[in-house]
Amino acid sequence: MDLTLFKEVKATTNKIALSTALDNQADVKIVNFVWDEQQPDTLFFSSVKTSEAIASYDQQPDVALITIPNDGTPGNPLLRARHVKLTRSTRTMDDLLPLYLKTVPHYQQVWDAIGSTLVVFELKLGDVKVDPGLGRSKEILQFR
Amino acid sequence: MDLTLFKEVKATTNKIALSTALDNQADVKIVNFVWDEQQPDTLFFSSVKTSEAIASYDQQPDVALITIPNDGTPGNPLLRARHVKLTRSTRTMDDLLPLYLKTVPHYQQVWDAIGSTLVVFELKLGDVKVDPGLGRSKEILQFR
Repeated sequence: MDLTLFKEVKATTNKIALSTALDNQADVKIVNFVWDEQQPDTLFFSSVKTSEAIASYDQQPDVALITIPNDGTPGNPLLRARHVKLTRSTRTMDDLLPLYLKTVPHYQQVWDAIGSTLVVFELKLGDVKVDPGLGRSKEILQFR
Repeated sequence: MDLTLFKEVKATTNKIALSTALDNQADVKIVNFVWDEQQPDTLFFSSVKTSEAIASYDQQPDVALITIPNDGTPGNPLLRARHVKLTRSTRTMDDLLPLYLKTVPHYQQVWDAIGSTLVVFELKLGDVKVDPGLGRSKEILQFR
């Protein structure tokens, strides 16, 4: 699997709009995510343990996402996926912290403030639309 | 109705992540929007006439949205709403063009390229969470 274009676009973003559809009711929030090259079909994000959203994740794990380019990124590159499977992760924030610190600016402040309250979730990707931005060819990456 | 805080946050964004839930299947896209002070409970956006998304809007008009701050906006201010009602608008892009040109950078290029193919939709807001950003008090604005 050629991840060249995926990795190029991934390098321009650290946030997704995460869309859920429990009982046909749309909801959307924006969360930071990290990606580990050793597990390329997965995006990781975290939520505060007591978040109301967690119950909805367990009940309706079929979600959608689109990346939001980092400030100053030209050409509007994006990754977009539907039928993403949201599950609790066996990995921990301690484990993922180096990735967060590398890709999310000022993450140390978040970690110091609420690190101990965070639980990790996985987003398993199936088909991902990879759009490198204005004037360039899109591709569909199939992880499963 | 005091729109002071809403207008302050609105001034920091020209894009929403728009989340739909047709047949319990989440989908999300990012679109530019405009707001007209004369019709404060409404955000306007447009889609290309032939877009697949339009059929889903007609079938499941109960959507959700969150704003995405413009590049360089500090503190992460946002507007967030669920149970937003998506309908076709009686207003036209010709009518809304001045608002687009005022709030979306380089919109003239979009207009010149695809203006004639665009149809206008309305997002009718009910309860909106208005979060002016880090360290400041949020409020819920109730339009209905």
